Amino acid sequence: MEVLQLDLDRTYQALRDVAGGDKFVPLHEPQFGGREWSYVKECLDTGWVSSVGSYVDLFEQMLAEICGVRHAVATTNGTAALHIGLLIAGVRPNDEVVIPTLTFIATANAVNYCGAVPHFVDSEWSTLGLDAAKLDNWLSEIGDRRENGLYNRQTGRRLAAVVPMHTFGHPVKMQDLVAVCSKWGLPIVEDAAESLGSLYLDNPLGGWGLVGAVSFNGNKIVTTGGGGAILTNDAQIAKRAKHITTTAKVPHAWAFVHDEIGYNYRLPNINAALGCAQLEQLPGFLARKRQLAVRYAESLQSIDGLRYFCEPKNCASNYWLHAVILDEPRERDEFLQYMNARGLMTRPCWTLMSELELFSNCPSSDLTVARNISARLVNIPSSATL
Amino acid sequence: MEVLQLDLDRTYQALRDVAGGDKFVPLHEPQFGGREWSYVKECLDTGWVSSVGSYVDLFEQMLAEICGVRHAVATTNGTAALHIGLLIAGVRPNDEVVIPTLTFIATANAVNYCGAVPHFVDSEWSTLGLDAAKLDNWLSEIGDRRENGLYNRQTGRRLAAVVPMHTFGHPVKMQDLVAVCSKWGLPIVEDAAESLGSLYLDNPLGGWGLVGAVSFNGNKIVTTGGGGAILTNDAQIAKRAKHITTTAKVPHAWAFVHDEIGYNYRLPNINAALGCAQLEQLPGFLARKRQLAVRYAESLQSIDGLRYFCEPKNCASNYWLHAVILDEPRERDEFLQYMNARGLMTRPCWTLMSELELFSNCPSSDLTVARNISARLVNIPSSATL
Repeated sequence: MEVLQLDLDRTYQALRDVAGGDKFVPLHEPQFGGREWSYVKECLDTGWVSSVGSYVDLFEQMLAEICGVRHAVATTNGTAALHIGLLIAGVRPNDEVVIPTLTFIATANAVNYCGAVPHFVDSEWSTLGLDAAKLDNWLSEIGDRRENGLYNRQTGRRLAAVVPMHTFGHPVKMQDLVAVCSKWGLPIVEDAAESLGSLYLDNPLGGWGLVGAVSFNGNKIVTTGGGGAILTNDAQIAKRAKHITTTAKVPHAWAFVHDEIGYNYRLPNINAALGCAQLEQLPGFLARKRQLAVRYAESLQSIDGLRYFCEPKNCASNYWLHAVILDEPRERDEFLQYMNARGLMTRPCWTLMSELELFSNCPSSDLTVARNISARLVNIPSSATL
Repeated sequence: MEVLQLDLDRTYQALRDVAGGDKFVPLHEPQFGGREWSYVKECLDTGWVSSVGSYVDLFEQMLAEICGVRHAVATTNGTAALHIGLLIAGVRPNDEVVIPTLTFIATANAVNYCGAVPHFVDSEWSTLGLDAAKLDNWLSEIGDRRENGLYNRQTGRRLAAVVPMHTFGHPVKMQDLVAVCSKWGLPIVEDAAESLGSLYLDNPLGGWGLVGAVSFNGNKIVTTGGGGAILTNDAQIAKRAKHITTTAKVPHAWAFVHDEIGYNYRLPNINAALGCAQLEQLPGFLARKRQLAVRYAESLQSIDGLRYFCEPKNCASNYWLHAVILDEPRERDEFLQYMNARGLMTRPCWTLMSELELFSNCPSSDLTVARNISARLVNIPSSATL
């Protein structure tokens, strides 16, 4: 066997110096140290556990404020929020939607739910997210401007939207992307599932496009058990988002009239109650996760063969998941095996969407950088409790 | 104005005699008198609020036992369960799915999510549900048996499945329907959203077809805030249902490979915890709701112009929502206005699916009985707490 460049035992010790102890350390665990009990108990005591209840409203208000948008509409999860965001952006069957190939499956699945086809593009090293300049070049190559929109001249399909995703909480260069999308007339649906609390140019994420989506899954910085939200500055969009996430029922004292295909995507009040208590603690979670970044950077500094991934410039990342970049892709699986076997939970990046069998026939640009990132990146324990 | 046949004040008094007091009485409210708090608190204390956690497994086991099936797979809601049930039954884009026109919108929406078209059929008075004999006749008229399935000769589309729905908990004549569907080679996806705990020929509902769906929305007999489940006796189907409701990720120590389009339909553990405590109380809820039926029937007996709707023969209904049938459709809205204005929450049946603008182009059989039911039925306060 080849000798590894990376000293796994030294790396293990450096990680343990930060993550502590010799017990099992999960990749990310939630913390319930606030008013979770009292809010959830109030739901049970009053009987308001379901779709109607004051915590849903409060959760939406708190969230809108944190994300710097006028409106938030709570949903069952981030996938549901993305799905509705795409529908609202006007994505129709047989359209193409531009998404990074380096993302979680939810981004691509949500495109599929609309009957549309994901069109995969590359990421950049500095942000791990969609490369706006490269997208601009690619659109110059394949874009065919017609009266009713931008078309992919290679497939004949309409390009309907662009979905940047802020990988592990690190912000995409949204200013550049907004300029590119504006130039090409493409709406942005911002996948901020992983980036609650992150700042780009001093502004929160989720409100840079027409509509944004956040997630409150159990592994996120703030959790509602399972949950998500649609973000927007547009009152009409917010109203429509609420409408179609709640079966599209037309308000009436008793009659049941639904005026379009709707979804059962409302967040139960009991989950929103949990979310309210969690959002109250977000500043503390953020501070501890950013402190963890400093500790990891310091501890891993002297290790040859990898580097700790630091937030992009002009940003304050929420450091949802911390990551190291290995010099050698071939050392990745050994690294994973070594750490996981010793109770330090680590995992690779997602398989690129373009490499999944089920999306193998979807269009894509050159994906060199994303392939490189995916081959070399490993996530390390990231909880705010560390 | 025409003189009403119905004495609204006497009816009001008769309803109040059962529903009690002079306060506002909702149509249906949940009751949390069991171990809800201790189970939910355990989720918070252990940090297991999300998709992994022991209450999801326990909830699925309890549910399977209650519904008399081998497997239950918990989902975010009943709509999600129906959607996956239809996919598993093999419903594909441009197929037709037979559903009663008299149902909640979720049944029709779930068909749409598969890219298929609802085909509306009639109900019968004795059960308020799908009329199996009439369906048989209708299939004789439009059914075109081909090598690869049954087709609608009027539209050219394949008929892919039949979805009976047990209205307000009253069982459809499943023995007859199973015979009809077997004769025509159509799989049954049983919409048991409203009928948890109901019995037909001494057997629970949800397990009569290939796959069944239940709901635990806030207004149901048992609630998880929002939740649902897929029921089946087939281990392979259960495995596939769990797989595609959890993003279709292939099990692996760390790699992210998804082998088909999946959904984020898993029920959070905190909602399952609520569900476990609620299921423990189901026998009590059922007893009280069936007792309520006796009291309503007695109290409304002497009122001219309406009749209280009693469960079908050979059944024990869960009496999820209690209902009265007015002699005169033209008196319905006045009845609703009168009762709601006085704090007795009442509501009509759903607008028939075939009468919604968004489904106006869908195929349908004769719907005479469903129109009659829909015009004359009113739901009255139904909580187990009454």
